Amino acid sequence: MSRRVLIDTDTAGDDAMAILLAAVADSVSVEALTIVAGNVEFDYEVENAKHSLEVADATDVPVYEGARAPLVKDHEHADQVHGEGGLGGNLFPDTGIPSADGHGAEAIVERARESPGELTLVCIGPLTNVAIALRLEPDLNELLDEVWVMGGAVNTLGNDTPSAEFNFWVDPDAASVVVDELDVTLVDWGLSLRQGTFETDTLAEIEAMGTDYAEFFTTASERAREFAREQYGEDSTTQPDSLAMACALYPELVDEANDYYVDVDERKGMTRGYSLVDEHGVTGEEPNARVVESVDEEAFETLFLDAMRHGDPERSL
Amino acid sequence: MSRRVLIDTDTAGDDAMAILLAAVADSVSVEALTIVAGNVEFDYEVENAKHSLEVADATDVPVYEGARAPLVKDHEHADQVHGEGGLGGNLFPDTGIPSADGHGAEAIVERARESPGELTLVCIGPLTNVAIALRLEPDLNELLDEVWVMGGAVNTLGNDTPSAEFNFWVDPDAASVVVDELDVTLVDWGLSLRQGTFETDTLAEIEAMGTDYAEFFTTASERAREFAREQYGEDSTTQPDSLAMACALYPELVDEANDYYVDVDERKGMTRGYSLVDEHGVTGEEPNARVVESVDEEAFETLFLDAMRHGDPERSL
Amino acid sequence: MSRRVLIDTDTAGDDAMAILLAAVADSVSVEALTIVAGNVEFDYEVENAKHSLEVADATDVPVYEGARAPLVKDHEHADQVHGEGGLGGNLFPDTGIPSADGHGAEAIVERARESPGELTLVCIGPLTNVAIALRLEPDLNELLDEVWVMGGAVNTLGNDTPSAEFNFWVDPDAASVVVDELDVTLVDWGLSLRQGTFETDTLAEIEAMGTDYAEFFTTASERAREFAREQYGEDSTTQPDSLAMACALYPELVDEANDYYVDVDERKGMTRGYSLVDEHGVTGEEPNARVVESVDEEAFETLFLDAMRHGDPERSL
Amino acid sequence: MSRRVLIDTDTAGDDAMAILLAAVADSVSVEALTIVAGNVEFDYEVENAKHSLEVADATDVPVYEGARAPLVKDHEHADQVHGEGGLGGNLFPDTGIPSADGHGAEAIVERARESPGELTLVCIGPLTNVAIALRLEPDLNELLDEVWVMGGAVNTLGNDTPSAEFNFWVDPDAASVVVDELDVTLVDWGLSLRQGTFETDTLAEIEAMGTDYAEFFTTASERAREFAREQYGEDSTTQPDSLAMACALYPELVDEANDYYVDVDERKGMTRGYSLVDEHGVTGEEPNARVVESVDEEAFETLFLDAMRHGDPERSL
Ligand SMILES: [Ca+2]
Ligand SMILES: [Ca+2]
Ligand SMILES: [Ca+2]
Ligand SMILES: [Ca+2]
Repeated sequence: MSRRVLIDTDTAGDDAMAILLAAVADSVSVEALTIVAGNVEFDYEVENAKHSLEVADATDVPVYEGARAPLVKDHEHADQVHGEGGLGGNLFPDTGIPSADGHGAEAIVERARESPGELTLVCIGPLTNVAIALRLEPDLNELLDEVWVMGGAVNTLGNDTPSAEFNFWVDPDAASVVVDELDVTLVDWGLSLRQGTFETDTLAEIEAMGTDYAEFFTTASERAREFAREQYGEDSTTQPDSLAMACALYPELVDEANDYYVDVDERKGMTRGYSLVDEHGVTGEEPNARVVESVDEEAFETLFLDAMRHGDPERSL
Repeated sequence: MSRRVLIDTDTAGDDAMAILLAAVADSVSVEALTIVAGNVEFDYEVENAKHSLEVADATDVPVYEGARAPLVKDHEHADQVHGEGGLGGNLFPDTGIPSADGHGAEAIVERARESPGELTLVCIGPLTNVAIALRLEPDLNELLDEVWVMGGAVNTLGNDTPSAEFNFWVDPDAASVVVDELDVTLVDWGLSLRQGTFETDTLAEIEAMGTDYAEFFTTASERAREFAREQYGEDSTTQPDSLAMACALYPELVDEANDYYVDVDERKGMTRGYSLVDEHGVTGEEPNARVVESVDEEAFETLFLDAMRHGDPERSL
Repeated sequence: MSRRVLIDTDTAGDDAMAILLAAVADSVSVEALTIVAGNVEFDYEVENAKHSLEVADATDVPVYEGARAPLVKDHEHADQVHGEGGLGGNLFPDTGIPSADGHGAEAIVERARESPGELTLVCIGPLTNVAIALRLEPDLNELLDEVWVMGGAVNTLGNDTPSAEFNFWVDPDAASVVVDELDVTLVDWGLSLRQGTFETDTLAEIEAMGTDYAEFFTTASERAREFAREQYGEDSTTQPDSLAMACALYPELVDEANDYYVDVDERKGMTRGYSLVDEHGVTGEEPNARVVESVDEEAFETLFLDAMRHGDPERSL
Repeated sequence: MSRRVLIDTDTAGDDAMAILLAAVADSVSVEALTIVAGNVEFDYEVENAKHSLEVADATDVPVYEGARAPLVKDHEHADQVHGEGGLGGNLFPDTGIPSADGHGAEAIVERARESPGELTLVCIGPLTNVAIALRLEPDLNELLDEVWVMGGAVNTLGNDTPSAEFNFWVDPDAASVVVDELDVTLVDWGLSLRQGTFETDTLAEIEAMGTDYAEFFTTASERAREFAREQYGEDSTTQPDSLAMACALYPELVDEANDYYVDVDERKGMTRGYSLVDEHGVTGEEPNARVVESVDEEAFETLFLDAMRHGDPERSL
């Protein structure tokens, strides 16, 4: 049976791959993309998303433009990580594909109402659209099947500030609302770093494939790879959005996941976007989120390479 | 020429009077009411709004249901001030009037887009709907003519906590966004207390009128009057929403208004909803809001009494 | 019987007058001055305090140097209000008087232990020394007779930021500790502005006196007067420290004072140093401080003028 | 040459062992203990410290009582971890040894002034005394040789709340001041858990020794061991204070330490006491603290066992 997904994304490099994974997968139906302020300038994100669909030969998927600013806080891009356009060097797509009518948050609400209990929402950007959707439709949680979120840094160093992962940092208010009010499964930055990172040899393998998908990956991850070299002295790329998407689409990838009380610090200041995860249950609060703690790393890589080489992530499943 | 207004309201006692003022005024066209979580339980607010339109013989005005919870924070009602239903003792209207289709925030956006630059938005509740509207439509400010807000306590004791007025306290995040991004004129709690309060004799005068409007007022203000007696030892009612509405509709009532830098404290804690108003310009921030500092108190009372007695607030203007 | 006082001060203009009032008063014994970081550079404050004692012919009063920085937060002076030295134009005293041995906070503790229940502590600067004294001696409250504090802005515009009075702003952590743990009587900025302000004619009267005291006042208030002209367009000086001192020494000046729950916002940000005063008892917290709400303004002025003219504030009491 | 140390401690189980290590070491001179509010009730801590000196046959070391409450925040003990008295089951020492005259913070200042540049301060409790000492003596940093602090949870789960280690949580204001103003070397909870934990076999080995020291350890760690079993399902004890002390006394134990920008969240709320450690230098702030990242775990254990068995931690060095 086909898995039906909504993808909420601030499309830069890794979002593009996550979209690609879903869009080319035989058993998956991507119902819509909704774009949210995040990685790079909003209009670039919109074009990046459309271009990803082009590469996947899936331009019939509607792209809805959503929130151009976080719920409450001021916005900052992450150009330093993803480059100005978000897809590497000189790739500034201009697809000519029109956006769908309506706001991204409204699209989430409408789709969920149309197919109650049938859609899985995969969130790979800041959570502004989803939080707005919740205020437009208080029953959103019941209307959705599952909600997967790439976000947070579970008791480990963040990738944006020492205390926060980028998606949660950009819109901590929205993250706080979403984690609190939806039944969320979290794929965090720490897991991505431990088990969703491709090293030099894998990167070389993809580079050598020569397919359009592989070429798209190589270009789109170029700037992040460079950033990793400068920042961490390592030649690698981390694929948090792809990992979250893969887990959402193929839950058998998840080796261990546990329910914890999770809260997001929505205050300005040094811990903006910090994700508290009460692993030992010391706060006395009830668990409210599921946190993925380990995955089948090999299966994820296989799946990803199959998508790049054959356009079929499900080939080895 | 007719003044066209959108009213965003958490309809309890004083909201009802403000709606009445606008709905019976000859030169005013009320385009829509949008309801927001605030004073009392949401469904009561919706019915209170519809009943106010009934009293005003204006049931053709569409009523849109909006946000049932603040943008980010948890919600608390103000039943202790307004009574359970919000309209006094036993008045729990059940009008049978259907709500209009669509969410309050969407209605604000759509109306503003349909008549760019022509509508005045009068906000007499927490600002959740307006903040969401801003995220759905970043150009909302340009699409509206004026935005009047009843909210804040300008360098004076608040009515909800010592540091905050109720509307800003309930949704400080929304208030912060709205004050920051829209060109707002503020009618605050301090002004309402100084110049928007009716004392025993005025209340007796209205009580003696015997009109439906006057009777509605007497019932709807009953609980707040009782609260004032208990809390402050004074027999009076304060009409912040009516005062804000009157100023919005008849700006000639405003004796003095100045532009100041205004900021709202969106943090949880002792100053949640605090409205910083930089009267002496010490913060170095540019003025971003207009604050009404004094009104023609007598004209306001006359207008209000004319509405109660004759259903015509403009009779003496 | 003689009233014995400890004065904790960040000596600039008005502190100097407050010290003078106490030091020349027949019925008062000033046991010690303790200096705290506040208005101007610490070493200037120390010299200003010593010079004030010189003018009062009271150089036998020991001057203890205390905390050179707030308890936790970074420090900012108020040179813009008081001028660089704090005593006006070119008055940078160099008294040659040695400071007493020991830290100001230790001096407060030692004096209080030596004369348990007999000393009144008058605090006219940020409360760092007093907070440290509390950590050195948890029983400080019992060891002191009374504690008077010039600080806070009770439900009114602050003089430092819109939300805060200077003393509380500079060290909000200390203010929070002191208000919470000592039985404090508060003389706030709002009261000072309403009833502790000298207008042009009073200032002229003092200027014309020709005494050393009057001359000291005229010089020391010069910069603050200028600041008031620039900032508020008014030729006046406000004497919060002198008013607090006068009330502490002669409680009969107090017309009305009430017990309220008071809390100080110790957080960084827009409400740093904000003094919450729960006038209507809505927080449910027990009153923990006494707040002076009105004074005999005329008596205060008489007392002050008597001090300036005759060196005897008690002449007309 | 003898290493001279001041130990600031909230003496419960592991503090006792740290004191023992220093007190029995031949090359170390313990100049004084200063007690601070922390693990258990203050008076128990004082007695625990004195009893530790008794066990070490070092009762000539003066014990100064210090701050009985954190600098600003309210205090909570950790009885649940250490048991009521802090030294296990029924061990409530009553040594009869008098405390030294003066406050712990004053003692730190005086000792530092007496031997400028010669003393190493080892802090194994909340940092209240040290922060007060800094306000009593702004030049404290220059007057001390080194400052070692057991505190913080470096980009890992805390032991008190998910975001904070106990010492920093109890007095985040003091921790913030100390990390900011002193040249501190940090031994954090994460390191302690990774490399300062004794497992069942080591615990059994100590238990079998039969010396007074070993018996003291077994009793004093009893409750923490039980807590670890209940909380983490592991039979082990973690020795953060002993590890910090060992590193301070024998820096050759430190395998890797790096300078980072460190900040402590002093706000109330979910991240109270959080230690931000900018491992990748993304904040743009200058490094201000040295963080121990790995130690010679085997050498530490040997040293500890030698102390327990022979009363000589330096036997194998
Ligand atoms: Ca993304
Ligand atoms: Ca209202
Ligand atoms: Ca002062
Ligand atoms: Ca300890």
